[in-house]
Amino acid sequence: MRLDVLKYLMDRVKIVDKELDRWVPKNLRPKILAQATRHLLEAGGKRLRPCLVILSCEAVGGKTKDALEAAAAIELLHTFTLIHDDIMDHDEIRRNVKTVHVLWGEPIAIVAGDALFAKVFEALAANMQRLGVDGRRAAEVLDIVSKASFEICRGQTKDLLMAKKRRVTEEEYLDMIAGKTGALIEASMRVGALLGGGTRKQVDLLGRYGMLIGMAFQIRDDVLGIIGEKRKFGKPIGSDIQEGKKTLLVVKALERLDPKDRRTLLRLLGKKDITRKEMRKAIGLLEKTGAIEYASRKAEAMVNEAKKLLGELPESRAKNALLRIADFVIHREI
Amino acid sequence: MRLDVLKYLMDRVKIVDKELDRWVPKNLRPKILAQATRHLLEAGGKRLRPCLVILSCEAVGGKTKDALEAAAAIELLHTFTLIHDDIMDHDEIRRNVKTVHVLWGEPIAIVAGDALFAKVFEALAANMQRLGVDGRRAAEVLDIVSKASFEICRGQTKDLLMAKKRRVTEEEYLDMIAGKTGALIEASMRVGALLGGGTRKQVDLLGRYGMLIGMAFQIRDDVLGIIGEKRKFGKPIGSDIQEGKKTLLVVKALERLDPKDRRTLLRLLGKKDITRKEMRKAIGLLEKTGAIEYASRKAEAMVNEAKKLLGELPESRAKNALLRIADFVIHREI
Repeated sequence: MRLDVLKYLMDRVKIVDKELDRWVPKNLRPKILAQATRHLLEAGGKRLRPCLVILSCEAVGGKTKDALEAAAAIELLHTFTLIHDDIMDHDEIRRNVKTVHVLWGEPIAIVAGDALFAKVFEALAANMQRLGVDGRRAAEVLDIVSKASFEICRGQTKDLLMAKKRRVTEEEYLDMIAGKTGALIEASMRVGALLGGGTRKQVDLLGRYGMLIGMAFQIRDDVLGIIGEKRKFGKPIGSDIQEGKKTLLVVKALERLDPKDRRTLLRLLGKKDITRKEMRKAIGLLEKTGAIEYASRKAEAMVNEAKKLLGELPESRAKNALLRIADFVIHREI
Repeated sequence: MRLDVLKYLMDRVKIVDKELDRWVPKNLRPKILAQATRHLLEAGGKRLRPCLVILSCEAVGGKTKDALEAAAAIELLHTFTLIHDDIMDHDEIRRNVKTVHVLWGEPIAIVAGDALFAKVFEALAANMQRLGVDGRRAAEVLDIVSKASFEICRGQTKDLLMAKKRRVTEEEYLDMIAGKTGALIEASMRVGALLGGGTRKQVDLLGRYGMLIGMAFQIRDDVLGIIGEKRKFGKPIGSDIQEGKKTLLVVKALERLDPKDRRTLLRLLGKKDITRKEMRKAIGLLEKTGAIEYASRKAEAMVNEAKKLLGELPESRAKNALLRIADFVIHREI
């Protein structure tokens, strides 16, 4: 990414981090709630979603600060889903640190997630109060964030159910990630544009951009989960296979493999005590079918469509950054 | 309760139940999400909180329907906390049926709770949209519900931590139930009064009424957990002891018992494989100290204070019902 764009984004990440500290302060009590809610936030993260909220706000002519609490709210919402997903998926490592339930136990991880979810809406209320938005726009922001939250739950439920199914179509997979990952990135864009005073048309096209790059982001995640570097990616490589996740790679490979190899892959998917050799075998089967290139091309097509949508917006630093972020989504190693 | 008051309340419960069906419909997909989210709602429940939302709205001159979605929202919020609390507390029975995580497993129970929590805010947004409330009032309703949600999480965390502590003061206990139970009932009253167009003073006094009867409700719950009838109460009697919960009865008994009996009670609290004989012993120790009467008198004093607050409201059927509900809270067997 070009240096000026990177500098512009880093400035916004700094503002977001300060705002996150305000909503989940270190002096929260009981102390264990402060530790458990702050753990993944402190472990890093790309802050992609809150940056998108701010950029979307700026891209329609709003000020950087107009959507500040909402930006923090979206990152809190994302963090809450990570904490709960890690419990459900039995993931032990994220962002190169132990997950919340591993460190503090499942009960505290559940309630810490819930507490972050509550803070989402407190932050949104504060944004509305500070900006003095009218009732109609306030209700719309709330409607968008709550519906996206519900879609995430639907997507996560589908993901859990799919792990147990032998046959999953590409359509079912795309529907699942639209909920699990696309919905929140779409909501980030819509909320930012609404608080920035965007027109109905601008809010809609930025929302569509969000859904497209969100889905591409998830597909890239599936790919990195197989061919990525553990240190950069922050999670063990191959954990999707161990959990039996029906990623796009798996869906496509199962479609393309001959019956014998398909049976082998199905047997290895979700195998808790999978050996290193078996893991290499499974990854080899994915590679052999060209599923990795298929997924990468799919993500690239979505990103190109997303970038095209931005053509209708006036030129701005925010628009330029949104174009760069779209590219980052499919080229990232982290 | 007098028949006309009961009829008046039952009418409102019917309206609430219909509204709940609208927010968590049977045809929700994936099907397992419909089953898991609707399970406890269908198992019954007193619908105390949504009724309070509507009565509070009516008590300040609002119409029954003005706070309808908010009433459903508060019951959804309550149901979400029950599902998650049951996981954290390892409770297997509630409302005389198996709990959600026992029936569908912990991952589905976690995500079903999250989904209900999301619906809370979608319902609130719909209420704001339908009523056309101004931005200031919309943000205030959101602020109240989100802060109450966070307080519930703090209260639940304290409850979890207290189970592991040997010494808990009455003050710590009261602070815990103010969060765990009082905050949501206070929020129910405040939100109802705000949507009904109440004055600042009315909103505040109804909120205080809510906190007081909410805390009294929790104390009565502690008492029923020991001296109640399983069938009416809907949960196994003595489960608080088995989980090592520091109820007001336990806090008071530990304060009043001689060192030998105190050690015995502490040994039995939280004993997973507690025998029937040991359970009788523990309950006997609580009875011996007069802790049950102490707790009952405490709850009665709170209810009397709450009823006095209502003196400042104009006479109405809603006000009359609120007075009767205050009495119900401490005399109920269910």
